[in-house]
Amino acid sequence: MNTYEELKSFFEPKTIAVIGASKSPSKGGYIVVENLTNYKKGKIYPINPNVDKILGLETYPTVLDVPDEIDLAAIIIPAENVPKVLWECSQKRVKAAVILSQGFSEAGEKGKILQNEVDKVIRKGGIRVIGPNSVGLINTSNNLVVSFVPFKEFRRGNVSIVSQTGIFCGNMLLWFLSFEWFGLAKSIDLGNKCDVDDDEILMYLEEDPETKIVLLHMEGVRDGKKFLKTAKKVSKSKPILCLKGGKTWAGARAVASHTGSIAGVDQIYDAAFKQAGIVRVESLNDFLDLTQAFNFSVLPKGNRVAILSVSGGVAAVLLDLCVEKGLQPAEFSSQTVEKLRKIFPPYVNISNPVDLWPSIMSFGAKKVYPEILETVLRDPKVDMVIVFTLLSEKFLESWSFKPEFILESVRGKVDKPVAITAMGEALSLEKLNRITGFFHEKGVLFYWSLESSVKALAALYKYAKYKEKILGLDG
Amino acid sequence: MNTYEELKSFFEPKTIAVIGASKSPSKGGYIVVENLTNYKKGKIYPINPNVDKILGLETYPTVLDVPDEIDLAAIIIPAENVPKVLWECSQKRVKAAVILSQGFSEAGEKGKILQNEVDKVIRKGGIRVIGPNSVGLINTSNNLVVSFVPFKEFRRGNVSIVSQTGIFCGNMLLWFLSFEWFGLAKSIDLGNKCDVDDDEILMYLEEDPETKIVLLHMEGVRDGKKFLKTAKKVSKSKPILCLKGGKTWAGARAVASHTGSIAGVDQIYDAAFKQAGIVRVESLNDFLDLTQAFNFSVLPKGNRVAILSVSGGVAAVLLDLCVEKGLQPAEFSSQTVEKLRKIFPPYVNISNPVDLWPSIMSFGAKKVYPEILETVLRDPKVDMVIVFTLLSEKFLESWSFKPEFILESVRGKVDKPVAITAMGEALSLEKLNRITGFFHEKGVLFYWSLESSVKALAALYKYAKYKEKILGLDG
Repeated sequence: MNTYEELKSFFEPKTIAVIGASKSPSKGGYIVVENLTNYKKGKIYPINPNVDKILGLETYPTVLDVPDEIDLAAIIIPAENVPKVLWECSQKRVKAAVILSQGFSEAGEKGKILQNEVDKVIRKGGIRVIGPNSVGLINTSNNLVVSFVPFKEFRRGNVSIVSQTGIFCGNMLLWFLSFEWFGLAKSIDLGNKCDVDDDEILMYLEEDPETKIVLLHMEGVRDGKKFLKTAKKVSKSKPILCLKGGKTWAGARAVASHTGSIAGVDQIYDAAFKQAGIVRVESLNDFLDLTQAFNFSVLPKGNRVAILSVSGGVAAVLLDLCVEKGLQPAEFSSQTVEKLRKIFPPYVNISNPVDLWPSIMSFGAKKVYPEILETVLRDPKVDMVIVFTLLSEKFLESWSFKPEFILESVRGKVDKPVAITAMGEALSLEKLNRITGFFHEKGVLFYWSLESSVKALAALYKYAKYKEKILGLDG
Repeated sequence: MNTYEELKSFFEPKTIAVIGASKSPSKGGYIVVENLTNYKKGKIYPINPNVDKILGLETYPTVLDVPDEIDLAAIIIPAENVPKVLWECSQKRVKAAVILSQGFSEAGEKGKILQNEVDKVIRKGGIRVIGPNSVGLINTSNNLVVSFVPFKEFRRGNVSIVSQTGIFCGNMLLWFLSFEWFGLAKSIDLGNKCDVDDDEILMYLEEDPETKIVLLHMEGVRDGKKFLKTAKKVSKSKPILCLKGGKTWAGARAVASHTGSIAGVDQIYDAAFKQAGIVRVESLNDFLDLTQAFNFSVLPKGNRVAILSVSGGVAAVLLDLCVEKGLQPAEFSSQTVEKLRKIFPPYVNISNPVDLWPSIMSFGAKKVYPEILETVLRDPKVDMVIVFTLLSEKFLESWSFKPEFILESVRGKVDKPVAITAMGEALSLEKLNRITGFFHEKGVLFYWSLESSVKALAALYKYAKYKEKILGLDG
C-alpha cells in the first residue's frame, strides 16, 4: 500500500469513532460530533461510557464495544488517558487516529512522557496517527471535518493547508475563506507530529486530485533529507508555499517552547528550500497574497514587467520595488511604442513605465485602459504587467475608473500575469468581493498594496524559472 | 517676513483669483471655483474673458481688471499662456500663485522652455509660486481647497502631506480619509517645484499649529543641504515620514522622465535621512501604517517587546519579524511571571512570547486579556506590546474575542506603545471602523498584518531613539 492509499483513512473514512464525545454544546467533544453530522460518506460512532445518545447517534462505552470496523478515530480526552485509548484503537485494528488532545511534548516533562507512551503504541500497534496537539483535519470534497473548531461552510477549491499549529487550520482558515479569494481542498494540522509528518502529507497531496497548491506552515522537521526529496518531487507539479517559524534566535527559542521542535539553522533551510523549489513566505499576508497569485494567474515566461500607472510618482515607487525583488523593466518593442503614441498627447515620451494620466485626460479612461493593456500584453518583450489605477466614484465621469474598463479588451483569460493594484475610497465588502471576483475570472490578480503585487509577480517568476530548470534537467 | 508669514498667502488668502475659471462642470477650471465656494474666509474672483458669471460669482477678463488686491491666484490655463498670465499677476502684486496647469518640465523640450520663462517671471516679479504641474493645496482648518480634484469633505486632524506628484494630494487623500484613521491638516502638491520647495514648506509646517506629523513624498530636491538642515530642525518636534521615489536605477530613470528630477544616489539620501531623523517608508501602505502609529501612539522608551499571542506558532513568526526589524524580546520581571502563573495551567512555562491559548481555554478570554495586558504593561522591563488575537464571531462564547475585552483594563490611554494585530472573518466597513476607533481612543494601534504592527513599533522606536540622542546633544 502506498502512502496515498494508507492516508486515505484520514480523508475518506467509512466509519469514524469520536472518543471523548460529549453532550454539552460548550465542549470540544460535542463540536467534533456536530462537525461530523455534515459528513454523509460514513457512519459516526460517539464513544462515551456515561451517555446513551449524542446528537441522535447511539453512543458506546469504548471503541472496543462498537459492532463495526473503524477506519478513523478522533480522540479528544484528557492527555493522560490517550495512551490507553490509543492502545484499544490498535487492538480494534482502527486504521487511523487524529489526536486532538493537548498536553504532550508542548506541555513540559509530564507531557513528554505521555507522548513517548503514544509513540510506543504506534510502533507496536501499527495505527497511523496525526497529532497529538492537533486542531484536526478537513476534506472539503466530502464535507469531512475532524476538529473541535466549529466549521460549517466551505468554499471548495484547490488550495491545501498543512500546518504545525492550530491557528492555521482554525482561524486562519476562517480568514482565508471569508473573502472570495480561493477555495480549500484539504486542511491538516499535524500538531506534534508523533507519526504522520509533512513528508507523507506532501506525498498524499501530490496524488490528491483536488489539490493544486500546498500551503505549508512548519517549525521543524524530523527527517529533513526525506522531506526535501519529497518536496522537490511535489513542487514540480504543485507549488509549495512555506512559512517557517523560528528564523531568528528569538523565534527559534519560541518554537522550542511551543511545539518542542528544533527550528534549525535558518540558512540551511533557506538553501534547501531553494533547491526543492519551495516558495518561502515571511508572514500571513504573504501567504494570502501569493496563494491568490498561484491560484489565479498563469506563470510568466520571464521577468520583464510593464508598468501602467495612473501616477508617474507611483510608477517610480513601483519600479523601485520591482528591481529590488528581482524583476526588470520591459523595453517596449517599436510596434508597441507606435501604437501607444496614437493615444497620448504629442509631448509625452512613450516608454515603460507608462504614465496613463495624460492619456486619460485626453481620451478618457474607457478608451485608454483596454487599448493600452491589450497593446502591452501583445508585446513579445513584455512578460508581465502591473496596472496601478484608481477605484473611485468621486471623480469626473470621463476619468472614472471602473474595473470593467481595465479588462474590456480581455476576451478569455489573460495569457501573461497581470496584477492590478488600486487606490481609492474604502469599499464595502460586497463591492470588494464583486471586483475581486471579476478580476479573478479573467486570471488577473488584484491587490490593494504595491508591494503585494510586486511580491506576487516576483514569486511567480521565481517558481516558473525553477520549474523550467528542473524539468529541463529531468527531460 | 519669515517663511511662515510669507507662505501664509497660500493657506489663508483673503482674496483668490481663479485664472482659467470655466462654466462647464466637466472642466478643471469649474471644479477649482466649485471647491472654493466652501471657503468662507475670502473673496473669490473667477477670471475668464468670455463669461460674465461662474457659479454666481462676477467674472473678470484678466487679473488686472479685478478691483481688489489679490493674495492668491489659482492658474489653470494652457501651459503656453502661463508665463504671460503670471507676469500680469506679478504686475498686480499678487502675493502667491498655484500653477495647476501641466505641460512644463515634465513634458519634453517645449515644456522645459515654458518652465524657464516661468522661472524668469518669478525672479523678476517676486511672486511666490507653487507648481507648475501641481494638483493644488488644501487647508482643512479653513476649508480652503485650491485644486481641480473635487474634494468635498474632510476629517480634520494633525497630518500634513507634502508631495511632488498629484496622486498623493488627490486620490491618496481620498484613500487616507475614507477610513476612520486620522485627519488631515494641510496637503500640498509642490509639482515641478519652480519656486516653493520642500524646504520652505517644512519650515511653514513646523510653525503650523495644526500639523503634528508630516508625510513627504519626494523624487528629488534642489538644495539638499538646505533641505536636510530644515528637516533636522523640524523632526525634533514633528516626525517626518518620507517616501522617496527613484531608489533603484529603474526608478530613478522613471523619475527623470516624470517630473524631470534627478533622484540622486540612494545611499546618500539614506544616510542623510538618518542624520536628519527622517523616517523612511518604502510604499503607500507603509505610509498609512506608520502615520497611524505616529498619530495615535506614544513613543517607546526602549526596544523590548512583549508578545501576547493566541497562537504559539504565530508568536514565533512575530518574534522573527521583530528581531529582523531591530526590536528585541523583553525578559519578564519575576513579579510578572508570578502574576501570570496564576492564570495559566500549571504545565505552562511562563515566558515571552506568551501563548494565550491555554489560559483562554482554562479561564476564558474575558478574564485573560485584560489581566495579562495590564500585568505586562506594568513590567518595567517591557517597552512595548504586540497582541495577536482573533476577531471572530464564529467561536464558542468563552473563547470569544471582543475588542472590548482586550482593553478592559486600560482606563485612560496606554502609556507604552501597544499594537493589536488580528485575524478573523472579513468585517464590514462599519464594524472595522468601530473597532479601529475604539482602539485608537485608547492610544492603541490596530493592524490586520503582522508585519505592519512590527514595522510600526520599530519605526516608533527608531524615531524615539533619534529624538533622545539629538535632544541630548542640544541640551
